[in-house]
Amino acid sequence: MTQTLDHPVETPEATPEQRTDAWLTAFEAALRDRDVERAAGMFAATSFWRDLVAFSWNITTVENPDGVAGLLTSTLAATDPTSFATEEPPTEADGVITAWFGFETAVGRGRGLLRLVEENGDLKAWTFLTTLYELKGHEEPRGPARPLGAEHGANKDRTTWLERREAEEAELGVSTQPFVLVVGGGQGGIALGARLRQLGVPALVIDKHARPGDQWRGRYKSLCLHDPVWYDHLPYLKFPDNWPVFAPKDKIGDWLESYTKVMEVPYWSSTVATRASYSEGSADSGGGEWTVEIEREGKPLTLRPKQLVLATGMSGKPNLPSFPGMDVFRGDQHHSSAHPGPDAYAGKRCVVIGSNNSAFDICGALWEYGADVTMVQRSSTHIVKSDTLMDIGLGDLYSERAVAAGVTTEKADLIFASLPYRIMHEFQIPLYEQMAERDKDFYDRLEKAGFELDWGEDGSGLFMKYLRRGSGYYIDVGAAELVANGEVRLAHGQVDHLTEDAVVLSDGTVLPADLVVYATGYGSMNGWAADLISQETADTVGKVWGLGSDTTKDPGPWEGEQRNMWKPTQQPGLWFHGGNLHQSRHYSLYLALQLKARQVGIPTPVYNLPEVHHLD
Amino acid sequence: MTQTLDHPVETPEATPEQRTDAWLTAFEAALRDRDVERAAGMFAATSFWRDLVAFSWNITTVENPDGVAGLLTSTLAATDPTSFATEEPPTEADGVITAWFGFETAVGRGRGLLRLVEENGDLKAWTFLTTLYELKGHEEPRGPARPLGAEHGANKDRTTWLERREAEEAELGVSTQPFVLVVGGGQGGIALGARLRQLGVPALVIDKHARPGDQWRGRYKSLCLHDPVWYDHLPYLKFPDNWPVFAPKDKIGDWLESYTKVMEVPYWSSTVATRASYSEGSADSGGGEWTVEIEREGKPLTLRPKQLVLATGMSGKPNLPSFPGMDVFRGDQHHSSAHPGPDAYAGKRCVVIGSNNSAFDICGALWEYGADVTMVQRSSTHIVKSDTLMDIGLGDLYSERAVAAGVTTEKADLIFASLPYRIMHEFQIPLYEQMAERDKDFYDRLEKAGFELDWGEDGSGLFMKYLRRGSGYYIDVGAAELVANGEVRLAHGQVDHLTEDAVVLSDGTVLPADLVVYATGYGSMNGWAADLISQETADTVGKVWGLGSDTTKDPGPWEGEQRNMWKPTQQPGLWFHGGNLHQSRHYSLYLALQLKARQVGIPTPVYNLPEVHHLD
Repeated sequence: MTQTLDHPVETPEATPEQRTDAWLTAFEAALRDRDVERAAGMFAATSFWRDLVAFSWNITTVENPDGVAGLLTSTLAATDPTSFATEEPPTEADGVITAWFGFETAVGRGRGLLRLVEENGDLKAWTFLTTLYELKGHEEPRGPARPLGAEHGANKDRTTWLERREAEEAELGVSTQPFVLVVGGGQGGIALGARLRQLGVPALVIDKHARPGDQWRGRYKSLCLHDPVWYDHLPYLKFPDNWPVFAPKDKIGDWLESYTKVMEVPYWSSTVATRASYSEGSADSGGGEWTVEIEREGKPLTLRPKQLVLATGMSGKPNLPSFPGMDVFRGDQHHSSAHPGPDAYAGKRCVVIGSNNSAFDICGALWEYGADVTMVQRSSTHIVKSDTLMDIGLGDLYSERAVAAGVTTEKADLIFASLPYRIMHEFQIPLYEQMAERDKDFYDRLEKAGFELDWGEDGSGLFMKYLRRGSGYYIDVGAAELVANGEVRLAHGQVDHLTEDAVVLSDGTVLPADLVVYATGYGSMNGWAADLISQETADTVGKVWGLGSDTTKDPGPWEGEQRNMWKPTQQPGLWFHGGNLHQSRHYSLYLALQLKARQVGIPTPVYNLPEVHHLD
Repeated sequence: MTQTLDHPVETPEATPEQRTDAWLTAFEAALRDRDVERAAGMFAATSFWRDLVAFSWNITTVENPDGVAGLLTSTLAATDPTSFATEEPPTEADGVITAWFGFETAVGRGRGLLRLVEENGDLKAWTFLTTLYELKGHEEPRGPARPLGAEHGANKDRTTWLERREAEEAELGVSTQPFVLVVGGGQGGIALGARLRQLGVPALVIDKHARPGDQWRGRYKSLCLHDPVWYDHLPYLKFPDNWPVFAPKDKIGDWLESYTKVMEVPYWSSTVATRASYSEGSADSGGGEWTVEIEREGKPLTLRPKQLVLATGMSGKPNLPSFPGMDVFRGDQHHSSAHPGPDAYAGKRCVVIGSNNSAFDICGALWEYGADVTMVQRSSTHIVKSDTLMDIGLGDLYSERAVAAGVTTEKADLIFASLPYRIMHEFQIPLYEQMAERDKDFYDRLEKAGFELDWGEDGSGLFMKYLRRGSGYYIDVGAAELVANGEVRLAHGQVDHLTEDAVVLSDGTVLPADLVVYATGYGSMNGWAADLISQETADTVGKVWGLGSDTTKDPGPWEGEQRNMWKPTQQPGLWFHGGNLHQSRHYSLYLALQLKARQVGIPTPVYNLPEVHHLD
């Protein structure tokens, strides 16, 4: 026996369940003893602890025993974690034990996913995910705790559900203030609004459009979601099982509108925030407060929320380039986000600057309407075929196959969250190698047509590009074929200037044009903060999105998490929320719990609030 | 060995699964051999086979080996049933083996629930439920078969989802005709409309109200559903798990409206059918056709559906009594269905004629508004407390407890459907004895206050009353207490006449009144057919609802199923649909499959179409 009491008791014959139980028991004992060193010693030399709000009141990943020790030193006493226990029998494959577990903290209940490996004969944590899912005393009224609805008995002061809803609507923003103001009511704002509603946090979602869902309805008419249905569910209410794999934009619009209604999300349409400022408050006054000037259906109003969430789109503000001659060009020109669709451009000469998702979608739709289309590729693009991506890239977690194998959306989200960003590319690279192999003929034809392809700087493909920079790729739903076969013409290089009726490239190529679409991407979300609050505040917060991977458009140093998303920023009371439907669903939970804790005065000491390295 | 080959091979040691498999194998063999006698001999002397559309193209129950033989003689050849197999391990309790099984017919796939008992040493079927759930070649596009949504590739003739929806809406009723017209767009019409949509049956739901859900919104304001959430799900899209146990009427209204939208139910609001007539068609012309005159937002239009479904409310047309003096009464008077709610009656003298659900709800709401309320009890009423009913009456099938035990809504519906109506009261009586015991004090106080209680003629309680007559009870949510403690006054007897300002009872009692509400119930649903089509057609169809139990308001002879509901009637092309949310959900499946079969020309020979014994 070389084991010491510091190590989990194990024998070669022990089942994965027994071995996991032993590890969890020993880990909990070390935590109970506040023995940081012992606990940290239970992690492998290369290991990752990702915490979603449970220990850190942050979304953060620490690495290796040193990182674990740092996290625990700062958070252990206040977190007081207990009751670690597996939730189902762990599984073992390829020398890795994977275990779902539950735990409690001083203030809440959590769930996690643990991967154990053998290192020098001992079982050690390789990846450790801890997530908070509810606050004690503030559990959501669901299932057995759902509201009764009817108020039984006879009561002369009875008010009905409708009367209460109407009174709440009449008072909100007038005699009562939202604790949280969410600016932007797309899927992000709506999902967060639904969660805050369930948690009893007074909140208000405002959006400039006339109806929930118009964020989608207003886009080009052939648009369908690029992510599949299993990836796209909103919280609480899943799409029915007749829902299309890739929902058309207007159908998603209708769903969001219905969802907002039935989930009772407090939502003001046709409302814009024009100005916001923050005043630090005293402890007596309940902390700082925002003053937000809004216009609701054109009428000005001032709101005073404690917390301000910008959910105005993870793509941030449109990057409209300024090329010489844009002022003399006589045709139509607009950023891709303002493109009205192809209807008016049949037979017209259309030049689309850019070669990513928007550029391809717009080129394809223009071609279908009989326009003469040229795409200007300024840098290489990563392309994957939608079917292939769904099958190889998402199939294990988000697919009919995954559902049949018992991988619920909730489980898939946590499995996904448990893969450390630091090493995620290593898992992604072989998937994209498979995709390149499967669709080799397609890629050969694209290259033959002169299209410049890439697979990300390290070959890690689409999802890493999304996480790192949110751009640089096209999920092919058909338009790539038009480039490959020359139906959509391809030009290369930078734009030098525009004339009255053409785009001129640096090499002198003249592209006659009745329409120029600038599919030139978006800036960082802190641009929204600059517009609404101040450049100073935007700079305080710094760049939003990206991992610090030191690749194109994602400068280092390494951050290990999406910058400033769904977690505290350097600006008190200011939050960023959004991303695709998956992120809007999953991360809205942690953002909602952070906001709930602040509303009810649960202390939320933030561990590891990142420094700001980049302003945009 | 006394066994013959006619009997399942079994040994005392066999598991329930083996014994069930043996029974199913032997049964299928008998069916394959078209040996009706052998198959019928596998049923117990007292036994029940309930078939929902799978064998009979009807909703029918046959009894005992004779009944089974009759059903099989008529249906076996065309049905060609095969592939009987358990879907999960059968269970055994109290000498009864319960088994879920699947099977196929010549045209579809079915699911059933079988209860086996030992009789003279052999295993025999005691109850046998067969249900059709899909037609081969016409499976619903769900799960792995869901639509793709996006149309990948480049296509110059591409139309978008929105364009197709708009075109469909513009053409429906103008250049295209619905195969099915559903008159009435409450939960029944909407659930059926959703199923027909999924099955690809061209259909149209019309409703007189301005918006889907107004059927609920327009009722008295304190109304909440009397059935709990687990019982109320619509097809395809379940209520989220934060949904109230008893949903307030306006919340249900919003849900129905959203559901109609997201399930893409073709639905015309503000539309009434004014006249309908049927013309028998030749076989060449595809059979008969309805000519239905409608007014859509006031504009007349003629529709020509092949099938007409009346989903105008199982309670049928309001029974407005005609008492002498109603013409001289100067106050307000209306049927309970037209009661606007209590707001205008604070301090007023209100007399409510009747003592069932509507009467109690209206008395309670009037009292809460400070009205002076008298209830006139004309006959005894069955009362159960809502909590008690939920717990004892529904808890095993429709509750959080049932969900936790794996009893999904779909399973609960089939378990419920598997209990033969003939003996259902025997299972109900002990439940109501329990309820009487639990709430003894409550009933004692009611009786002390003079209220005349009953438990149904055979003590079988509320659900049997619902099935037999659809009336005669109150699910107490609080108002009974007001009668028990005298806050709502009680009067007894029949109404003799009204004066200018009072209701006078047969015993001479004068009840001064500013308002008289006639909570006097509803007639049979064939009254709708009389109004819309003709009295002759209403008489051809006969009474709708009831089992033929030979109890009050449900005259014999025994029918064994709800008369004329969800199944063929004596009038070709005319159907009745509705009931509570549970029935609207579950039976809409069988009605939709019957309509789909007719649309695509699958032969639907109806077994056991009942004779008409009662006109209303």
